[in-house]
Amino acid sequence: MAGQTTVLITGGSRSGKSSYALKLAHPYQKKGFIATAEALDDEMKERIINHQRERAESFVTIEEPLQIAEVIGKRGDEFDLLILDCLTVWLGNLHFHLKSPQKYHPLIQEFLEVLKNPPCDLILVSNEIGMGIIPENKLSRKFRDDAGKLNQQVAELAGRVILMVSGIPVVIKGNSQEASP
Amino acid sequence: MAGQTTVLITGGSRSGKSSYALKLAHPYQKKGFIATAEALDDEMKERIINHQRERAESFVTIEEPLQIAEVIGKRGDEFDLLILDCLTVWLGNLHFHLKSPQKYHPLIQEFLEVLKNPPCDLILVSNEIGMGIIPENKLSRKFRDDAGKLNQQVAELAGRVILMVSGIPVVIKGNSQEASP
Amino acid sequence: MAGQTTVLITGGSRSGKSSYALKLAHPYQKKGFIATAEALDDEMKERIINHQRERAESFVTIEEPLQIAEVIGKRGDEFDLLILDCLTVWLGNLHFHLKSPQKYHPLIQEFLEVLKNPPCDLILVSNEIGMGIIPENKLSRKFRDDAGKLNQQVAELAGRVILMVSGIPVVIKGNSQEASP
Repeated sequence: MAGQTTVLITGGSRSGKSSYALKLAHPYQKKGFIATAEALDDEMKERIINHQRERAESFVTIEEPLQIAEVIGKRGDEFDLLILDCLTVWLGNLHFHLKSPQKYHPLIQEFLEVLKNPPCDLILVSNEIGMGIIPENKLSRKFRDDAGKLNQQVAELAGRVILMVSGIPVVIKGNSQEASP
Repeated sequence: MAGQTTVLITGGSRSGKSSYALKLAHPYQKKGFIATAEALDDEMKERIINHQRERAESFVTIEEPLQIAEVIGKRGDEFDLLILDCLTVWLGNLHFHLKSPQKYHPLIQEFLEVLKNPPCDLILVSNEIGMGIIPENKLSRKFRDDAGKLNQQVAELAGRVILMVSGIPVVIKGNSQEASP
Repeated sequence: MAGQTTVLITGGSRSGKSSYALKLAHPYQKKGFIATAEALDDEMKERIINHQRERAESFVTIEEPLQIAEVIGKRGDEFDLLILDCLTVWLGNLHFHLKSPQKYHPLIQEFLEVLKNPPCDLILVSNEIGMGIIPENKLSRKFRDDAGKLNQQVAELAGRVILMVSGIPVVIKGNSQEASP
């Protein structure tokens, strides 16, 4: 790594992951935000608008549901920090749009390659989805497996990993002093 | 806060939250227990009876499915400690009985106000329900979101927050020395 | 305990539990692996074959879906270390094959007895399945309850308990220094 810091923030739904990502971003000057969610229905539109409001004008927002490695690679040096929110939604987009592992695995590999030598600091937001009962649906099990594997691969490359619980950042990898806001 | 201590105990189902709450309550003299669960079926009746047996006669039990802020506010000074078990069931009762956010949000605000200046020490039991796959049902997603948000708001006001995992208390906010029984 | 070490590794699906168990097993000479999963369909067959490949030839594999206490008791002194992977699948087998608690509780008790004085070091892999929304299905709730209770009972007897999150071992009981590989 060229001295860049990558932080992975994971946790359950509404555990404060996105808000904490924004908190960690405060000291940075030039900030970009890669939003992976697609507004497919009103519920999603509302969530996306709420998130945009939270970021106000301090971020350049880049909406990109699939080609995140390309975005980080090509535009990373415009920024001191890029937040990516979130990996699990991105993985869902890959499953939904590209269907077969043959088609989406290369995009995952490309992303992991970028993480090995990122052009700017990165804060990656992900989700813990594997601590409930086993889903009855086979596609859900496959997604859950892929999401868990992706989290492992990203956590291995990240300098710091933070598990959010009830809005509290629990540092599980890296220096715990630096992590508190 | 008037020097009172508020502890939030969260965790998955059967992770030992209620038992640990009772353990932390040992040193107290005058103890009250606010039970939020309603016995709507035999399964719930059995759980409630088992929990009551665990508490024996050392607690005054107050059954209150909805108006917990009022109970804490009005009766708190009768006790050294009030245990509330549990926030997630209470939130479920609010959704079930009052239906619209317009009707139940004021009760949540009222509760958060009481937490800012509680009349006695409090142990609040809650649940982590956001670490499984995304529910297909929209009402479940709404409930999951509201539960996560409530946990964040309560954790922010609590002096100590404990995540139970396999019966082991993991202190994620506050002094970890004090937390072990 | 006769100076033996028991480690419980728990966590969500694909959180790196099995891989970390194998990592912890490295220093041992005579190693056995109790596999509880039954290959009921192609998906399971594939998972089992992948796991076997990961272990290569350094382990003696013992496939046992139900009588794990008997296996540990009778064959434990052939080994320096036994890995059991995993408790939740074993509990599922008990529910599936024996149906009534009257029939499977004795097997659980027998297992907990063996843990009090194990014949060799043990690494027990389990699953966190209680942090999602409450299952609608009554049997699923019963299974979730039993799994949580079993985790509590095993964690109490284990010298070390590790929660895996995104492939990172988080020590929640015992010496955290020893746990890192």
